[in-house]
Amino acid sequence: MNVDERLLADCHRLGTLERATVLLHRNAAVGWLILVPDTGAEDWHELDDAEYERVNAQIRALCGWGADWFEADKMNVATLGNQVAQMHVHIIARHRDDACWPAPVWGQLPESDAGYDDATVAGLRAALARDLRLAASEQDA
Amino acid sequence: MNVDERLLADCHRLGTLERATVLLHRNAAVGWLILVPDTGAEDWHELDDAEYERVNAQIRALCGWGADWFEADKMNVATLGNQVAQMHVHIIARHRDDACWPAPVWGQLPESDAGYDDATVAGLRAALARDLRLAASEQDA
Repeated sequence: MNVDERLLADCHRLGTLERATVLLHRNAAVGWLILVPDTGAEDWHELDDAEYERVNAQIRALCGWGADWFEADKMNVATLGNQVAQMHVHIIARHRDDACWPAPVWGQLPESDAGYDDATVAGLRAALARDLRLAASEQDA
Repeated sequence: MNVDERLLADCHRLGTLERATVLLHRNAAVGWLILVPDTGAEDWHELDDAEYERVNAQIRALCGWGADWFEADKMNVATLGNQVAQMHVHIIARHRDDACWPAPVWGQLPESDAGYDDATVAGLRAALARDLRLAASEQDA
């Protein structure tokens, strides 16, 4: 599936779930997963029944997984799409001592030089493959 | 059901859906509904199966309804809860010429004196009662 270049520029591509791509935002100040469903819908209510069920199940799984992996105090889940219209769901692990708590991350999270090293990204991929059957995508980077 | 006082302070109470309260944010710069499910869960993955199905169906209905009613260019749907832990879902109608487009609203929407007049709130309630079977709550205000 095609993923908008602006999302890819900000993220590591972790792999794929059924008809969806999973990304990891490069800003490691928060644990920030992005689910990109393979759909032409841009808004929630435009998803058809099968899409709605599938996307919600994936959100639920990623939210629970992210809460554990990042030892989150709170999960933030959001679809905005004001800048990149392609539907994508932010699933963000927040901590009471993170860089912009309690504000939302968008536009308020300082740019961070602290990115993920290759081993950390590989570890995330392996754990998601084990726990949620994330499949490798050819373009992992 | 009890709704956190901080949410009530910011919102008009529109009415109730099954095991949920629907609010309207007083800042009329954007069309901003808030769904407050009657649940002890604070995060998505903590909802049980029945709650997850019910809350998602309500989000879907409110998102489609709000897109029509407010003639939205884009719907923003989010659960954050960093400041008010009680689970609540923001369902926000955005326009390309609204006060903080394309930024998210939280922390970036100017305070507005332009609130809703009583007739507008009553019209919203009546339309939601007709379209989504919103019920009156005794504490409507």
